[in-house]
Parts: sequence; structure tokens; C-alpha cells
Amino acid sequence: MKTMKAAVFVRPGKIELQEKPIPTVGPTDALIKISTTTICGTDVHILKGEYPVRPGLTIGHEPVGTIAAVGSAVTGYELGQRVIVGAITPCGQCSPCLDSQHSQCGGHAMGGWKFGNSIDGCQAEYVLVPNAMANLTPIPSILTDEQVLMCPDIMSTGFSGAESGHIRIGDSVAVFAQGPIGLCATAGAKLKGASEIFAIDSINGRLEISKALGATKTINFKTEDPIKVIMDATHGRGVDVAIEALGTQSTFESCLRVLRPGGTLSSLGVYSGKLTLPLDAFAAGLGDHKIVTTLCPGGKERMRRLLNVVAAGSVDLKPLVTHRFKLDDIEKAYDLFANQRDGVLKVAITP
Amino acid sequence: MKTMKAAVFVRPGKIELQEKPIPTVGPTDALIKISTTTICGTDVHILKGEYPVRPGLTIGHEPVGTIAAVGSAVTGYELGQRVIVGAITPCGQCSPCLDSQHSQCGGHAMGGWKFGNSIDGCQAEYVLVPNAMANLTPIPSILTDEQVLMCPDIMSTGFSGAESGHIRIGDSVAVFAQGPIGLCATAGAKLKGASEIFAIDSINGRLEISKALGATKTINFKTEDPIKVIMDATHGRGVDVAIEALGTQSTFESCLRVLRPGGTLSSLGVYSGKLTLPLDAFAAGLGDHKIVTTLCPGGKERMRRLLNVVAAGSVDLKPLVTHRFKLDDIEKAYDLFANQRDGVLKVAITP
Amino acid sequence: MKTMKAAVFVRPGKIELQEKPIPTVGPTDALIKISTTTICGTDVHILKGEYPVRPGLTIGHEPVGTIAAVGSAVTGYELGQRVIVGAITPCGQCSPCLDSQHSQCGGHAMGGWKFGNSIDGCQAEYVLVPNAMANLTPIPSILTDEQVLMCPDIMSTGFSGAESGHIRIGDSVAVFAQGPIGLCATAGAKLKGASEIFAIDSINGRLEISKALGATKTINFKTEDPIKVIMDATHGRGVDVAIEALGTQSTFESCLRVLRPGGTLSSLGVYSGKLTLPLDAFAAGLGDHKIVTTLCPGGKERMRRLLNVVAAGSVDLKPLVTHRFKLDDIEKAYDLFANQRDGVLKVAITP
Amino acid sequence: MKTMKAAVFVRPGKIELQEKPIPTVGPTDALIKISTTTICGTDVHILKGEYPVRPGLTIGHEPVGTIAAVGSAVTGYELGQRVIVGAITPCGQCSPCLDSQHSQCGGHAMGGWKFGNSIDGCQAEYVLVPNAMANLTPIPSILTDEQVLMCPDIMSTGFSGAESGHIRIGDSVAVFAQGPIGLCATAGAKLKGASEIFAIDSINGRLEISKALGATKTINFKTEDPIKVIMDATHGRGVDVAIEALGTQSTFESCLRVLRPGGTLSSLGVYSGKLTLPLDAFAAGLGDHKIVTTLCPGGKERMRRLLNVVAAGSVDLKPLVTHRFKLDDIEKAYDLFANQRDGVLKVAITP
Repeated sequence: MKTMKAAVFVRPGKIELQEKPIPTVGPTDALIKISTTTICGTDVHILKGEYPVRPGLTIGHEPVGTIAAVGSAVTGYELGQRVIVGAITPCGQCSPCLDSQHSQCGGHAMGGWKFGNSIDGCQAEYVLVPNAMANLTPIPSILTDEQVLMCPDIMSTGFSGAESGHIRIGDSVAVFAQGPIGLCATAGAKLKGASEIFAIDSINGRLEISKALGATKTINFKTEDPIKVIMDATHGRGVDVAIEALGTQSTFESCLRVLRPGGTLSSLGVYSGKLTLPLDAFAAGLGDHKIVTTLCPGGKERMRRLLNVVAAGSVDLKPLVTHRFKLDDIEKAYDLFANQRDGVLKVAITP
Repeated sequence: MKTMKAAVFVRPGKIELQEKPIPTVGPTDALIKISTTTICGTDVHILKGEYPVRPGLTIGHEPVGTIAAVGSAVTGYELGQRVIVGAITPCGQCSPCLDSQHSQCGGHAMGGWKFGNSIDGCQAEYVLVPNAMANLTPIPSILTDEQVLMCPDIMSTGFSGAESGHIRIGDSVAVFAQGPIGLCATAGAKLKGASEIFAIDSINGRLEISKALGATKTINFKTEDPIKVIMDATHGRGVDVAIEALGTQSTFESCLRVLRPGGTLSSLGVYSGKLTLPLDAFAAGLGDHKIVTTLCPGGKERMRRLLNVVAAGSVDLKPLVTHRFKLDDIEKAYDLFANQRDGVLKVAITP
Repeated sequence: MKTMKAAVFVRPGKIELQEKPIPTVGPTDALIKISTTTICGTDVHILKGEYPVRPGLTIGHEPVGTIAAVGSAVTGYELGQRVIVGAITPCGQCSPCLDSQHSQCGGHAMGGWKFGNSIDGCQAEYVLVPNAMANLTPIPSILTDEQVLMCPDIMSTGFSGAESGHIRIGDSVAVFAQGPIGLCATAGAKLKGASEIFAIDSINGRLEISKALGATKTINFKTEDPIKVIMDATHGRGVDVAIEALGTQSTFESCLRVLRPGGTLSSLGVYSGKLTLPLDAFAAGLGDHKIVTTLCPGGKERMRRLLNVVAAGSVDLKPLVTHRFKLDDIEKAYDLFANQRDGVLKVAITP
Repeated sequence: MKTMKAAVFVRPGKIELQEKPIPTVGPTDALIKISTTTICGTDVHILKGEYPVRPGLTIGHEPVGTIAAVGSAVTGYELGQRVIVGAITPCGQCSPCLDSQHSQCGGHAMGGWKFGNSIDGCQAEYVLVPNAMANLTPIPSILTDEQVLMCPDIMSTGFSGAESGHIRIGDSVAVFAQGPIGLCATAGAKLKGASEIFAIDSINGRLEISKALGATKTINFKTEDPIKVIMDATHGRGVDVAIEALGTQSTFESCLRVLRPGGTLSSLGVYSGKLTLPLDAFAAGLGDHKIVTTLCPGGKERMRRLLNVVAAGSVDLKPLVTHRFKLDDIEKAYDLFANQRDGVLKVAITP
């Protein structure tokens, strides 16, 4: 039996590189040889034990690689073909998938998120892709691995914040938190035609990148009150869409406080503990507010579209990849990333 | 100066009938002689001091009557014409109105709700209608006052719960609370094509009416657990849309607990105190849930459509008018309605 | 090799019952033993050579039956289980399917319509269902075959006319032609909340059924001018949505002539020859009109929802099944149906 | 009685500068002193007698100026304030306006287009604006007249082609014709997040500008076949959205021929004569195609948003203003513009 290296969740506090068997391919699967992958904030939640997964599970949900094998029912692909797969791998055939709820595949919450959650993930030499026909997207040869590395999760999630907010040409938008996902939400707001984009964070380096991606006004909440700045800048009107990209009571609440009546709070964050709606900002439920949550859209059509955006040069996310590691050094990568040292945004991991 | 009788908010606990001057008509106004009006749950909040309005204000926002006078810039109507006016009276000309946010007219939360809130209301012999061109709807002669009395608020609000939930043919829907608005939400769910409608309340009489309006399964929460019943009936799937029609933590939370991933919580209630999102039912923000709030849609086009529904006989809301009072006896009507005695749903008040 | 009876297209003018091999099941397929099926207007186009298919093809796309075999990759079903399959059988996994364009599966026009078009259909003792996981829907035991026989095509198509028209509560709607699909469009308009539904045809028997399904006004175009009647009834306003359910220049054009500015023409018909837009009724392209075409929505989630509608008793389509035949007599059934004799609407065929 | 200069339609072939009385202001009107205006292709249709208007009517519907007087019911503005008004001036208060159909104000096709159509227009020293409260938009002082001159019609119309097409991030779009409106449609497609934009015209100068505004591929139809180029570039898939920006059978038909199944033809052109749907490209009505027409969105909220876009620098339309004339020389301007000499795109006219 052939083996491979894989980053495995052992117990809270411990993800380590282990030898595991290379997976066997079923009729609708594909086996991908990973060429580049990365670590997500969610992986850190797993590492810290804040999001429980089964011990022994391979972690990681952002794969770039080549096709090593396909199942008997998989057609239209070639061995060796370079492909990307979304973090969410819908089956396409269950009721929620047929109803465009791909992220909720199977009908249970987050059911579409399989890699590194309910099945082995891609921080490894190989990953087995379920429902390959719905999930393998060829990468144009003009694009490098690093250029497309944000597509499976960060870019898809960040953009969806703008999309689910139904941002329109001429809108005012606020994006709370400018980590990798918030930065992509900022870029998405720009791509959707917002003309005024407020980007809020406490790290100036991130705010600088947000400007390059489309923010028209940056606010460091350590030195300025975002609510006051935004309400002043909009002449008391508030923003049309507020995007939450962190997952805290404070950012969620700030979103509502800068939102105009009839506006949309588009929420991307993963919340823990308690989440309370401030009834004054929520107009006691009479403000025609909408609160919309979105889990990273996946599937090969979504990936195809995101690759198009990268290929068109509409958005340049290269500045997000700040560090590079070999798979052998992934524990060091986790250490850097989990502690957010050295201005890290995203790391590229190559086997 | 001519005077009229009007139900006036004096102080918390006190609404009384007073003599007030008949209003003067400005260029874009109309004066309506009230023939029938009613009391809303919101008026009771005002009476109790839970929703603050200015002392001296005439209360009431559900007018049926005839045109007594129009301003110089008002055309297309005749004196004596029988009309209805929505509880929400948008100007049609401000930025939010031009952006279809009529309930948020003027750009501040609930700005479209003027009658008995920011200007004198219609529990009186006359009411002055602002922006008459946008708000006067002729009533077909075949319809009685009582047949259309639910249109200005109850029916418009209730239906909007179904509309904002984007109910589709074949959907499963739960409606929490079957007061007048919840009953209209149930009727709205039926009208939008839901095939499975769970109606929840603690009063059997209301549950009976909900069946006549379209509920396929009624649940008295005093004797059954709505969450268990609904999850069993939907084979663990949950409902596509849950409508909140009361304004409490409990009903809001129950809505989330029976909602499928990707479903919509359509909220109509007026909340007070604190409102907390249960993160387990909310899938920590990753369930693709939508929470949508709606304030009663108004304006003459909305009223025209609702009159069409009544005229078509699609919905029979006559059972909702359970009691009748003269305007002179409105204080008795408040006493009955505020204390929810005698199976009261809605009262008809005639000057 | 086992054989079965199947209605096969031989050449224009000739569909005949032949013996064919029972199909072999691939890994993602299911084999269904047909218990009831029916003939569609499209099958008559095929018979007449107006819509070309490959000689030797088994015709029919409306199957009700039981599972006789499933492929190795098909899970969650049982042999002998009673199921329905839509006329459109999307794969769920190609780009169009993942983008909710199931009827255009594969990316070529009508690609989702496979049965009796690009693969063998279901006027036979057995039919092979591709992508079984996306297409098999269990039938509740309380429903008979005939109760659900309209779901695969007639009901799905007819309802989609109302759905694609985005009919809203209180809308006025006209449905041109009251054949089986037009009748279902009328029922769909009612289900979506239209309050005024004009049904137009030349056969009084059909107009009678349309009344039972929701039409508020029927117009026999042989004795009345539908355009005049509708424009008068709507006080010159026109309808919000006009549904075309036949596929002729005349009905298409009439739809535009009764449509209000900003309204939607929802087209279901299959057109041949030429189709011209009358520029006066189309306001030279400046009337904010929408023209939307829809091919029968399929897939198991669609079928599940339609079964819900039938089970709820919201719509009773039993009057549509006017005649019954054994599969052995299918040539007689074609003769009756193609010549529209004896008031036929739909026939039930049982092997 | 004071008089002013105004460009008046006399008879087909003749628009001339005449002295007319300065209009009197009614209660809901505003009088605007024009500082800059322009000529539209529609005005040329009027000049040529192709679009009939009443002799004696002042032409022009794209006003920039200052408030000279307001009616008694107009509040919130100051005399001398610099404002822009859309080509479409909705009342905001009729049924279509309250239903977001502002361009069809009053309920008859194109009812919202009043200036230079049903009432005197703005190629004059003064223009009377009806329903001033719904139509006057203050111009930020940082913007010049020429920077905002495209907002009332060209930019609003062009952008709406992208908006009504519901362009999504990553879409492929084709824009047929690159006159001023087509160029703005190209810019709108870019603003909405399209990643592949094909711009088609026969004038290389216009194609150059289209590149600056967002086209990723330009096609001169005199030297290349747009259908072949687009189908090749999209690997036979076709575009998601095709925008028609001219109003001819040829461009309309080409749009359908490059459109993928399920795609949207967003039509902006004004058609004359006959318009035929090619049934092969239209998949006989079974391709899930949508055809959407849009008349220039107007009203002060639309203008506010477009001014935001200009102020944000998201789009630079200055290259569209190629020539400048005094109002006294407007007949020369018509001569140049109507004959499309000297590479003219748009002319600025100043009294």
C-alpha cells in the first residue's frame, strides 16, 4: 500500500504531519496530487479545538493540483490535468444542491464543506475529491498556482459577501475586518460596482492592501470610531450594505449601526458564544433590514468563474500570499499563521 | 373653526376622545372623512407607553372613508369618493421611496409610518393624508368597509411576511403566532403557493381560523412542542420559510430552530428588550440563513393590489372583525382590545 | 437477453410498438419499471416529423414506476420503490446545472431533455434513468399514479410559466391557450396569488376546466376579442403577466398586446416558422418589457415539490386525464391524441 | 413676460432656435436655468421626423443647471443650487412609480419620458421640471458640468443594460454597438464584474474607447464576424449576457446568436420597422432565454447614485464629449451630430 504525507488533527493543540495511505478511488471520485495548498483561519479553529473534528482527519480545504486518478464514472478529464477544487464540494444531485444550496449539500448545515471537516482534506500529498464531475475545474495554463490559490475559499467567500449583499452600482458599503476574507469582500464590493467602500481594521498594513483592492476610505478602529466616521461621511444616511468578515459581536453590531434602513448585513464570519441583535440599530425589527449569511460557494462552475476573474486581471490577490512553506514544514506554518506573526496573511504550502 | 372628535394620546395609560380642529389642507394633502377604522396592537403599545409618541397626537393608522377635500396640487380624485389609505404613507419622491423603500420614507427607520406616529392619525372623524397622490386608493363599490378594513395594515403586513420570505410553490412554511397579523401571514403563505403550512399559537380559536385561511397543520404550543412536531413532519428537513408574527425572543428563536439550512426567517414582530441569535440553530453563521424584516408596505399601488385580492375572494378576512364600536365608545374598545377579552381579534370603529 | 415492449419512432408518421432489449444499468443509472406514462404534444410533433429524432428511439418523457435496478454508485433508494422522474433529467454536475440551468444541462439548448429526445424514453415497459441520484423521487403512498402523472412535464411546465413570470399577490394575468400546459399555467397563476386570471381558448370544455383551476374570466376567442375584453376589464391598464402556452405568432403577439408597460411575457410554447415582435405593442423596445422562456424544470427536488402540491390538494389535475390505454394499444392512443378527438386532454398509458 | 431661447421642433427636418416665454412655476415644479445640455440620438430621430412630437415643442432631455425658482410645495432646495435632472422625470406617486416602474410613469409606455417628448425640454435657457421633489439632484461642487453631463441619459441607459442583464462576477458579456450608450453599457458591464467583455462596432475610434472603458476584446464587424469570434473565444459556450445598444434587426439577432442557453439579451435600442426572433438561435422558445428591455432609469435617487460613480472615479466618460457649442449655434451642432461627422460622440451645449 502506498503512503503519503498528510497534516492530521491529533487533538486540540496538535496538528502533525503523518504518513497515511493514499486514498482509493471510487466510481465518482478523483484523486488529486496536490501542488499547492494553504491554511485557513478555520483550520486554526480546528487546531485550537474551537471547531471539533474527528481525530485522525487530514486538515485543509484549498487544493491546487493535478489529476492522478479518476473513477469509472468520471469522464471529460485527463490524467495529469491541472485542476482546482473549491473548499465546498457539492454533490450536485441532492435536493439542496438541485435547489442551488450547494453549501448545504445533503440538507444539514454546512454539509457541502467536506474537505478537512467530514472527509480527509488537502494538506497532504494527495486528496480524494468526491463527486469529481461537479468539482474539478481545469486551470488555464497562463495562471500560476499562487495566482489561483485564493479561489477555493478566500476569494469565493469574500466575493460572496458582496454578492449576497446584492451590491448595486453606486452603493455605499462597509467591510468590517480586513483579514484575507475581508480583503476579498472589499475587492468583491468594488467588482460589483460600489462607489464608496469603507474598510475597517486595526492593522494598517491590511488597510493599505484594502486600498489597493478598492477601499475608498480606510478606518483604523483603534484610532477612529468607525460608526461616527461612516455616518458622517454618508451624511447620516448609513451604508447600503455592511459586510461582516470576522465573526464577533462587536463587528456584527457595528454593521447594524452603520446600516441604512432597508439595507443588508451580509455576514461571513463564524460566530461563537452569543450573538445579540442590538434592537435600537435593528429598529425593533421594523427597519426592513436583511441579515444574510453565506458559506463559501463551491463547485466547478463557481471555480470557473473565479478563474475567469483572475485571468482577466480584474483583481490581483498576489499580495495576500505573504509566506511560503514546504509541506514538511507545515507545523511551522501553523505556528506562524495561528499566532499571526510577521504580518502573515496567507501561506502557500507545497509538497 | 370647525372641530371633530379624535382619540388622543394623553399620557401612558390614557387615550381619550377629545375635540380637535379639523385639519387644514395643504397643496399636496387630502382630507378624509373616516367611515370605518380599527385599533392595532401597536396602538396598545402606545397606550401602555411602550412605544413613545408625542402627547396630544391623534392615534390610529387604518383609515377607510371618503374624500372631504383635496389640495391644489392633487388631481384625479373627486370629492365624496370612497377611498382607503395604507398605514404607511410614503411620499414617493424621496431617495428611499424612489428606491422602493417606501416604509423607510425620508431615510430614517420607519419613516413611512406617519399616521398616529409622527402626524395625527385616523381614530377620528377626519384625517389629513399627506402626499395624497401617492396614497389615496378608490374602493370598488362592491366591497364594504369591513371587507377592506384589514388592508391598510394587518393584511399588508401579514402578506409581506410571506412575500419577503420569497415563498415558492411547494414550500413548507411555519408561522409563529396567529394573532391578526399571523393569520394574514398564514393566508399569505397559502396565496404564495406553500403546500405545507404550520400555524402555531396557544389559542385554539385562532388556530381554527388559521385552518380556514390555509394552515395545513395547527400546533398549540401549550400542548405540543412546535419544534419537535415540525421537524418530525418534515422528516428532519425543517421549513423553507419561518414567519415570526409576534416579536418575542421565544418565537424568533423557534423560527430559527425549525428553519432548514438556506431558509429564510421572515420577521414581522416588534421586539423589545434583547434579541439573541441562538448560534447552534444559526449554524454559527454558516447556514446560508437569511433573516428579513418587513414593515407594512403602503402606498396606493399596494392598496390597489390588496383590494384586488379581496374583490377576487381569494381570502376571506371577515372572521377577523369580531367586535364593533362607535367612535364615541373607543375608550371601551381600547379596554377590550388591550386586554384581549372575549376572543377579540379586531374591532371596527365607526364615527 | 431480456426484451421489453417500447413505442419507437420509425419515420415521420410512424411510431410503433417494438420489442427492444431491456437496458443495461451503468454505475450512475437506475432502471425503472414503468407503471403509468402518457403522451405529450411534443411526442406528436415527433410523430409528424416536425421535431426530428433518430429513428429507432423510444419515445416518451413522463414516467411513473418502480425501481427495478440501480447502478453501483447509486445509494439511498430501494428496489421496488415507487418513484417519479421529471421529463428533464439534469446531471446536476455540469456547469449549467451547477448554475441552476438544469434544463440546459451540458450547455446546449434543451440539453436537459433526454428521454425520448437524445436517449430512449419511457413509453415502454422499462426506462433507463441517467444520473439517478439527481432524478429519482419517491412517491408518497397516499398518491395514485394518475394523481402524479402530470408532474414530470405538464404541471412542471405550466407552473413554470407562472413562476418565471414572477407573478405576485394581486397581479392580473392572461393565459393564452388552455391545453394541458395552459391549464396548469392557469392553476400556477392562481397558486402564486394572482387575483385576476384571464383564460383564453376556443374550446368551451377547456375553458370550463380553467375556471375550476383558477381562471376568473374565460374568453373564447372565436366569439370575443381577447385583447378588447382584457383591456376593458383592466381599464386600459393591461395585465402584469401574459403567459403563452401554445407556440404561435398569434398567441405570442396577443400576449404583448395585453401586457402593461413593464410587464412580463412568460413563454412556454414551442414555435416554428417565424416569430415576429410587434413593435407597437413592444413600445419600440422602450416599454421595460420582459420576455422569458422556460423549458420544463426537472430533477428530483422539483418533483418533490410538485408531489407536495398534489399531496396538499392545492390543485386537482385529475380532470386532465380523460382517456386510458394499455401500452399494447399505444398506437390507438397516438391516433386519438394526435387528432385531438373526443375531448381528449391527456391519456394514461399502462403497460 | 420674459422670454428665453429654446431649440424648437418645427417640422420634420427643422429644429430651430426660437424665443419662447420662460415657463411659469406650478406648486410642485422647479425652474432650472440650464448651464450645460447635450443632443441625444433620439433628438435626431425627432429632427428627421422618425419619432413624432408636437410642432412647437422644445427638444432635449439632458439638463445640468441651477435652480431659478421652485413651487410652493417644493422644499429642501435652495435657489441657485446646482442640480442635475434625469431624462426620465417620474412623479413617484402613480401606481407604476410606486411599483418601481418609473420609466413607465402614468401607466402608458415611456410615460416617464417627458422632457422634449410630452413637455418642453431643456435645449433652452430654462426648463420647467415637473415633480421637482422627485427629480432635482444636487451636484457635488467637485464635479464639473461636463463630468456629469452623461448622467441624465447616456450613462443611466448604458449602465441599465448591464443592470437589467443581471451581470454577475465572472460573466462573459457582448455589447453590440459602441456609440455613447453602447460605450456606457461596456463600462457598466465592467462595473458589474464581468470578466470577459466583447465590444462590437465598425468604427475603430469607438472600439479604442471601449477598451479604455472595460472591453477585453474588440471586434470590428467590417473585418471580422462577431458571432464566430465570440463563439470561438467562449469555446462554443456563448456569452451570459448580450447587450443590444443600437436598435436594428441585425444587432438584435446577433445578440441571440452569441447568447448561451439560459442567457439574457438586454435590449437598449429603439427599433423601427419589423423585429423578428430567429427561432434557431431562440431554441424555438425552449432555451430558457430572457429578453429584457430597459428605458433609461430616472429620478433623483438614480442620479444621486450615478453622481457617486462619477465622483468615485470608477468611470471616466470625459472622452465621450468630443465637441462643444453655444446654444446660439445649436443648429450647427445638430448638423454635425445628425451626420455623425468629425468623430463626434456627444456635444456639450452651453447657453
